[in-house]
Amino acid sequence: MKNPLLAPELHEMVTQGRHDALKEFCEDGNPAVIAELLSALDPAEVRSVLLLCDPILQAEIFSFLEYELQVGLLSILKRRELTRILTNMPPDDRADLFKRMPEEMSDDLMPALAHAEREDIRKLSSYREGTAGAVMTSDYATLEKDLTATQAILHLRKVAPDKETIYSAYVVDRQRRLLGSVSLQDLIVARKNETVADIMQENPVLVRTSDDQEEAAGKIQKYDLLAIPVVNDEDSLVGIVTYDDAIDIMTQEHTEDIEKMMAITGSHETAAYIKTSVWKHFSNRAIWVTILAILGLISGTIVEKYETLLVQFTVLAAFMPMLAGAGGNTGSQAATLVIRALALKEIQPKDALLVLAKEARIALLLGLLLGGLAFARVIFFGHSSDAAPLHLVGLAIAIALGLQVITATLLGAILPIIAARFRLDPAVIASPALSTIVDISGLLLYFTTATLILGI
Amino acid sequence: MKNPLLAPELHEMVTQGRHDALKEFCEDGNPAVIAELLSALDPAEVRSVLLLCDPILQAEIFSFLEYELQVGLLSILKRRELTRILTNMPPDDRADLFKRMPEEMSDDLMPALAHAEREDIRKLSSYREGTAGAVMTSDYATLEKDLTATQAILHLRKVAPDKETIYSAYVVDRQRRLLGSVSLQDLIVARKNETVADIMQENPVLVRTSDDQEEAAGKIQKYDLLAIPVVNDEDSLVGIVTYDDAIDIMTQEHTEDIEKMMAITGSHETAAYIKTSVWKHFSNRAIWVTILAILGLISGTIVEKYETLLVQFTVLAAFMPMLAGAGGNTGSQAATLVIRALALKEIQPKDALLVLAKEARIALLLGLLLGGLAFARVIFFGHSSDAAPLHLVGLAIAIALGLQVITATLLGAILPIIAARFRLDPAVIASPALSTIVDISGLLLYFTTATLILGI
Repeated sequence: MKNPLLAPELHEMVTQGRHDALKEFCEDGNPAVIAELLSALDPAEVRSVLLLCDPILQAEIFSFLEYELQVGLLSILKRRELTRILTNMPPDDRADLFKRMPEEMSDDLMPALAHAEREDIRKLSSYREGTAGAVMTSDYATLEKDLTATQAILHLRKVAPDKETIYSAYVVDRQRRLLGSVSLQDLIVARKNETVADIMQENPVLVRTSDDQEEAAGKIQKYDLLAIPVVNDEDSLVGIVTYDDAIDIMTQEHTEDIEKMMAITGSHETAAYIKTSVWKHFSNRAIWVTILAILGLISGTIVEKYETLLVQFTVLAAFMPMLAGAGGNTGSQAATLVIRALALKEIQPKDALLVLAKEARIALLLGLLLGGLAFARVIFFGHSSDAAPLHLVGLAIAIALGLQVITATLLGAILPIIAARFRLDPAVIASPALSTIVDISGLLLYFTTATLILGI
Repeated sequence: MKNPLLAPELHEMVTQGRHDALKEFCEDGNPAVIAELLSALDPAEVRSVLLLCDPILQAEIFSFLEYELQVGLLSILKRRELTRILTNMPPDDRADLFKRMPEEMSDDLMPALAHAEREDIRKLSSYREGTAGAVMTSDYATLEKDLTATQAILHLRKVAPDKETIYSAYVVDRQRRLLGSVSLQDLIVARKNETVADIMQENPVLVRTSDDQEEAAGKIQKYDLLAIPVVNDEDSLVGIVTYDDAIDIMTQEHTEDIEKMMAITGSHETAAYIKTSVWKHFSNRAIWVTILAILGLISGTIVEKYETLLVQFTVLAAFMPMLAGAGGNTGSQAATLVIRALALKEIQPKDALLVLAKEARIALLLGLLLGGLAFARVIFFGHSSDAAPLHLVGLAIAIALGLQVITATLLGAILPIIAARFRLDPAVIASPALSTIVDISGLLLYFTTATLILGI
């Protein structure tokens, strides 16, 4: 905010009942900013401010309020006030609100709404979470193809208060099949008598209701769209996803990606960190941690098998942490880059060989570097034992470490690609799972190499 | 794309020289889609298609082409054609192109541009990479505050072809200080004689040229803006960042976050995976891997110190991988959630105690779970030794593992917060660094606990 003093000032205006000033304040500001400032007030005060605004603005500001404050307001607003706000809310935000509120509350509120709104909520809530259908809004502007540019602008002007955006309008036939899209900019620039059919872009980029919400966000990004039309199985236009929803989708998917990479399970509707209960946090994290701990026991079994070797060369135990760390780190790096490149569609599963060839060369360099480091450590700081000369021990450790880095990097690169080929999310292979896998392969390599070189 | 057959069809149209069909095809489509289809053609063919379009469309399509194709076209376009395209390009895309092209090429092209464009490129290129100044465009629409709504719309109509967007316009005074913002929607809906000053939102949300680009993208997201104005140190309006740039910034920051979390260094201008050279990949990854490997040697030194203990109880070595894995995983999970919550501003550094209290309870549950698992493994599958009874060994390992999980979780939660308090990026503490740190603390805990309980 430009002016951090606005919040106390607002509070003063409310307590002093300066209605005209408050009304002007709400009308001159960005509704999202107003909502942010209002959240410092209690629900009764927020109600009194909201009621000063016209119905459209009321609904707009309400949509930007935090869920808790919305629920608080729902219980103190009069029936008539409530109906007006809910009726004017963007349909996607309204459907979300109904989906989140307790069932008894929605059962109570539903009858207050007109049939059309109830149907709309029911329809929007019926799409599977995470699909384009579930995030779209049904308040889009349509145009008939025979309108002139001037007529079209007049029409958009008339419907503007009820629509999420009038900057993109959609041309449909009688079956609501999508014929094209028109931007307000093109209409304004057009000659007055040009028709919508002349101006519109045919075959607009679109998504289907069942497409993943990421697909919609990705196309909005790729084609610099303000909104993308959503069609149903009969190819009829049923909604649009706007750019601001796309931005929110991307943030949500970003959180999910990162959590998946750290083996945290969760759902599409990620709640804030602080608001999630201890028990929920525990169960989201415990599943993978336990699975990986059990896999970690396999590593333990391998170590037990080579007990005699370890007793004879305790220096081998000293390099076990470095071995595990180097394998985990190099493998995770490769996996992260490949997962990200797959997500950004820079590479496809069919590029597997290309990726492996590249990673093999990078791995060789990393392996030489870390192997050399380990060798130097053994030679300069190791104490020789009777069992084998120092340089042989150093060589065994260096070769094992180099092999571990190469194996880990290649596994890190190829496992996400294999997952993608089997239509699994590549991110499941990321850091924790991979570290555990290369721990096992690393120990096997380590003890095998040591046995061979030290000749036991 | 709706019709995957368009690409070969396009090729056919080009080879058959069907100019009218090609022209119509370009004018009816989304420029980003056209650019995507054109990239299947060779530069000479792309040139012939581009020249059929009007200058504005040419520049728009050109802006969406891949960098390589753009450079290919630059060398075959005639001087006059080139100047026209570069002049009409969005200034931010043009400045980016000049920044990326080889110096000799830009030295060669610069004189072809008019003084104003040269100045513009110079100015936009002067802002530090990663700031709002470096991503903004200078093609925004301004309005005088005394215009009526009708006059304002006429003005926007006139300037539309040269502006990145006319949906958001900015009201400035004679010193170009920002007075307010007006949306085209508000102008269209307004009564004809209302003035811009009546309609505009005062104190619009803004960023400064030196602000981080993430700041601009974050505000666009938070306040559902189409564009955000950028002002310089004298509070004069110098550019805008549009929502499509915000989406690209978020994708770029997402990649950077993930790479930082996996200890991959890199720059703001992330190149595609495949196009980055093996050597560059190596150097981006080698730095942290080496630092962490050296830290891993500290773990090794600790293991060496407890050599005699390990020889006596080789079972302790068998649980080292599980110990390291559990610490790394639980610590990384906590760190990831805290880093993400900090990034989304759900928590602040001052919430440290709140976070620690929550994580302590989660850690206790996770510690009991994994400690119990380890105890069961020792009791059911361990073979007793002469040195100590099996249940004592199991107890030592279980307690050490539980303590390790608790320490790792708390360190994972607090280290990013400490980093944030010192204005460092919390993500540097993520997975690999943290795993290495908790490896060291874990081994110390492990051997201390074992020594105490097994009484050696």
